[in-house]
Amino acid sequence: MDDVRFAVLGTGGIGRRTLDVSQYKDGLTPVAACDRNGVAVDHEGLDVPELLEATEGNIASGPRSGSKESSGDEPRDSGPEGDVATDGGAKADAGTATEGVKQHGEEAGIVASEQGRPTETPIDDIIAESDDIDAVLVALPNLEHDFIPRVAKRFAEAEYEGVLVDVLKRSRVIGMLDDREALLKESGITFVCGAGATPGFLTGAAALAAQSFVEVEEVEIWWGVGLKSGYEDNRGTVREDIAHLDGYDIETAREMSEAEIEALIDEHDGVLEFHDMEHADDVLLERAGICDADDVHVGGILDVRSDEKPTTTTVSVTGTTFDGETGTNTFELDDATSMEANVNGPALGYLAAGVRNNRAGHYGVFGPADLMPGF
Amino acid sequence: MDDVRFAVLGTGGIGRRTLDVSQYKDGLTPVAACDRNGVAVDHEGLDVPELLEATEGNIASGPRSGSKESSGDEPRDSGPEGDVATDGGAKADAGTATEGVKQHGEEAGIVASEQGRPTETPIDDIIAESDDIDAVLVALPNLEHDFIPRVAKRFAEAEYEGVLVDVLKRSRVIGMLDDREALLKESGITFVCGAGATPGFLTGAAALAAQSFVEVEEVEIWWGVGLKSGYEDNRGTVREDIAHLDGYDIETAREMSEAEIEALIDEHDGVLEFHDMEHADDVLLERAGICDADDVHVGGILDVRSDEKPTTTTVSVTGTTFDGETGTNTFELDDATSMEANVNGPALGYLAAGVRNNRAGHYGVFGPADLMPGF
Repeated sequence: MDDVRFAVLGTGGIGRRTLDVSQYKDGLTPVAACDRNGVAVDHEGLDVPELLEATEGNIASGPRSGSKESSGDEPRDSGPEGDVATDGGAKADAGTATEGVKQHGEEAGIVASEQGRPTETPIDDIIAESDDIDAVLVALPNLEHDFIPRVAKRFAEAEYEGVLVDVLKRSRVIGMLDDREALLKESGITFVCGAGATPGFLTGAAALAAQSFVEVEEVEIWWGVGLKSGYEDNRGTVREDIAHLDGYDIETAREMSEAEIEALIDEHDGVLEFHDMEHADDVLLERAGICDADDVHVGGILDVRSDEKPTTTTVSVTGTTFDGETGTNTFELDDATSMEANVNGPALGYLAAGVRNNRAGHYGVFGPADLMPGF
Repeated sequence: MDDVRFAVLGTGGIGRRTLDVSQYKDGLTPVAACDRNGVAVDHEGLDVPELLEATEGNIASGPRSGSKESSGDEPRDSGPEGDVATDGGAKADAGTATEGVKQHGEEAGIVASEQGRPTETPIDDIIAESDDIDAVLVALPNLEHDFIPRVAKRFAEAEYEGVLVDVLKRSRVIGMLDDREALLKESGITFVCGAGATPGFLTGAAALAAQSFVEVEEVEIWWGVGLKSGYEDNRGTVREDIAHLDGYDIETAREMSEAEIEALIDEHDGVLEFHDMEHADDVLLERAGICDADDVHVGGILDVRSDEKPTTTTVSVTGTTFDGETGTNTFELDDATSMEANVNGPALGYLAAGVRNNRAGHYGVFGPADLMPGF
């Protein structure tokens, strides 16, 4: 495949790490990035080490003063922000959603890079360059459900012909994208949705594991995250997770005070267990013809007092073979692999697959399982 | 995707089961099949149950008198046959390589079906119909290394524009296909090679599992096959496996008498263990950029005295993440899933992926990992 030139919207954890990981992949050239204050464009290829160094402000630099809502690295013109993570953050993005932005005097974020320049309209600035951009990773956490669909609409209205990739989590967003599919197709956009860890990596694994079977009875996706050192930086993500607990929803979780959240965590000795989470794996597997959405179950365990994973991330696919046997195939991630590693490699893989499809004239909305070999 | 019309060359185990499994898949219509004596073509779609019933002669029907070389269902004009399985059979095809052919008076194989007619030139007959065939599964076991490459050449010389899929096993065959790539491209052929269980299903799993890592250190593919009830019908496959044992090769295994083979099996109490087999997973993963061929190891255990798998089929991928951790991701097939189930679902999945690529104008030689999402 020819070289893929891609842009990143948002230089929070996912955006930064995607730039980082792309250095290990052949044929991927990052040419643009933006955050809420600035934009950097170089069609010959960004200087990634300089950009990462200049904007560096991740948990490795120690505790910072940012509150849970201080997602200072989303583009400012990107639409309303919720004060609770409502999408895109995810276990997938553990450690990053609420990072602070490095300050260089008056300059924050990407403008601190010698490649960056200030802007009030970062997304529009990227759109203006998009004739020379094959794919755009939308790495914007902590926003309203319809934010990413609205970003897609803006690209479509600008007649962008290329790939958009997101790492969204919630099932309901897929329907919002489908509602805009005609517009996306008209523009020539291949939208790859849910291309992080889960949905994403693990959705693809489920599609693969299903291939022993002619009938899939159940897909169980079970994750483990240890978040001790990343806890302070992930209060927003933890708050979002609380919305998945029995007796809670997004509204109640949003309204909880910090003290109430601490009390809840204490009550659970730092370990929160989740079942039947609203993760888009369900609708993404159904649309790929693997199984019914109702047969997909997503859950996991979050331990905010240990960096060890409290349980092994596992995909289990149970089905019946053509010769009448019932069995369960499994895919397990080593406990030593961070969720960050499990998001960014697959996100770039799906991005490249999106470009292949886009160049072949396949437009519209695609999930990870749609991009697996014919399965 | 539009409907895929496909043909099957060979109605041995893989061919028959592919026809069978295709009935469970949407958008796949079998339109032609041939064996050494006959051909059946119906562009509206073959009557699969009738064809399977008429040609039925698998192990479920009880022991038969066929010798190990009695692969009576390969097309007669398909080239020289070795008397030892040299390719395409595999654990993948356990239970089928040496099936007999049902006899209806003078009629054997596909001509016993009311859809079949006798022919001396089955492959040419399929080629003659190939304008209306999107994909051809080459399900011809027990032949010389260069047989499948030569079949590909015949399709290319006839200017076939479509997909060829095989389930070959040995690494050296990939190079032979590569040697013919210019001819394949010129014709418009997308050749998907090694699209069975291993290589195939498990190669794709390795490519997927590698996505946590920026550097893959080792891929280990380990299979288990229990072959008690299928033993009589798989003497050819067992003989081929013996060629992988220390101190044996294809020549020595070919020259062994049945009694010598029985003595060897007795010596091992019916359980043969294999390491560092020549399986094309190595070159197929290397060409997809996953790792070096030398870092791929394929082995397994064959138990000819039990139908239980003696070990669990597992793919283990060890690598280093972008954040410097080393780990091993694993993919395990349930012991209850037969190797037959693990060949035919993936083969059809790769076939459909091949068609998508062919329609997009991607011609040449592709392995399973090349068809995974951009990985």
